[in-house]
Amino acid sequence: MAGTDRNRELITGGPAIILVEPQLGENIGMVARAMANFGLSNLRIVNPRDGWPNDKAVSAAAKADHVISGAVVYETLEAAVADLNFVYATTARPRDGHKPVRGPVAAGEILRGRESAGERTGILFGRERIGLRNWEVGLADEIVTFPVNPAYASLNIAQAVLLMSYEWMKSGLSHPHETAFAKAEVEPAEKADLHGLFAQIEEGLDARGYFRSETKRMKAVDNLRAVLTRPGFSTDEIAVLRGLFASFDKFSRSGQRKAAEAGDEE
Amino acid sequence: MAGTDRNRELITGGPAIILVEPQLGENIGMVARAMANFGLSNLRIVNPRDGWPNDKAVSAAAKADHVISGAVVYETLEAAVADLNFVYATTARPRDGHKPVRGPVAAGEILRGRESAGERTGILFGRERIGLRNWEVGLADEIVTFPVNPAYASLNIAQAVLLMSYEWMKSGLSHPHETAFAKAEVEPAEKADLHGLFAQIEEGLDARGYFRSETKRMKAVDNLRAVLTRPGFSTDEIAVLRGLFASFDKFSRSGQRKAAEAGDEE
Repeated sequence: MAGTDRNRELITGGPAIILVEPQLGENIGMVARAMANFGLSNLRIVNPRDGWPNDKAVSAAAKADHVISGAVVYETLEAAVADLNFVYATTARPRDGHKPVRGPVAAGEILRGRESAGERTGILFGRERIGLRNWEVGLADEIVTFPVNPAYASLNIAQAVLLMSYEWMKSGLSHPHETAFAKAEVEPAEKADLHGLFAQIEEGLDARGYFRSETKRMKAVDNLRAVLTRPGFSTDEIAVLRGLFASFDKFSRSGQRKAAEAGDEE
Repeated sequence: MAGTDRNRELITGGPAIILVEPQLGENIGMVARAMANFGLSNLRIVNPRDGWPNDKAVSAAAKADHVISGAVVYETLEAAVADLNFVYATTARPRDGHKPVRGPVAAGEILRGRESAGERTGILFGRERIGLRNWEVGLADEIVTFPVNPAYASLNIAQAVLLMSYEWMKSGLSHPHETAFAKAEVEPAEKADLHGLFAQIEEGLDARGYFRSETKRMKAVDNLRAVLTRPGFSTDEIAVLRGLFASFDKFSRSGQRKAAEAGDEE
């Protein structure tokens, strides 16, 4: 989806994303991209299988260069988390143990709170096929797990990073449900405008003999007013509708007999 | 991340994921995978560039076979949404217009509520580079956009599908919002009915020379479709509107000169 605005300030900072022994450069690049999408920039890599730097990571990163060039490689997980205050381990399923298990929303909020309080935080992601080993999970403070389909739970590393990065970004929005996307619903017009639309349509129908009797007229008018009232049309929307009916009312199908005489359409 | 349990029941159903003219089979496969992770199974593809079936899609789908084998290809977007009642368009940034713009959380909850009420829903995703065209967005009821880093907003299709699928899954975990949307006041018609109303009005306007040029035509059509889409008209409401336009179209003001000639009204 296009939409990058290079004039906007790049959002950086936030929790460190720590990849433990990733195998494919492509995945590392996609992780960088997911991080950049949601304002994270601190990438740490423990023992990447194919070494570092990695050309495939760079090309898969789709210009998330600031993340790739800032990535730091560590020989051990202990070293990669040494300067952090609080660490999550991501796992596909909750594991037995004494650590709290959070969903991504709660984890995003907890990370936000700790970062705001001046702590340094991080999130561990395991290898492509086997995830994190138990002793690696043991180095984390809490576990975060994803609400995946139990029968199809093969979330890859970049997807898992994407979801956590997204929840991190969301946790920083003041009203995550809506305000960030503030866009008023349509503001309904004053009723006088709506009544003008009624009058225009009803007059046009009257002039065409649309209403067969006064009883039928009342019912039909009730009906059309109900249909036109329910949406809460705005002033602009009413203007568009009035224009449409006016065109149908005033102009004939050019060069054609009137359809009423021709009777050629249903 | 490993963790799939083949003994667990596969979660399926939910909103249709509709890819508009996707280019790369790999992306279609990754979309299928993201859907399967979060319990979606209804994949629709409009004019895939490289045809269908597509071997690269199958290999990228990582065993999300039930999604790939169930995918349906359509020649037009209109056909792909014809049987749906409510449709989201995903865009990288909010666009000018009359449609409500939601974040993913709200959109997930709204989709959950509508599906629970028996409506059929879908989510449109645009082409890799240029997303959805304005007229395609115009066929949707609401817009969903993602809280991405404005300076790095290049979310790819599979990532966008992943986030929406994740929010769909999350919206079903607890039910605090369900009742608010439990039953829409009016059940929206299938899109095919709405498109019939568009066709009737646009044909009538064309026959009257309402559109001065092709450029003006496109803008005016976008505009009228937006006004007529926003209310989510029911089948009955659309029938009333079609009757009104048909009367104005086919019958003249009896015993009167045509207003266009008389010029006696504005």
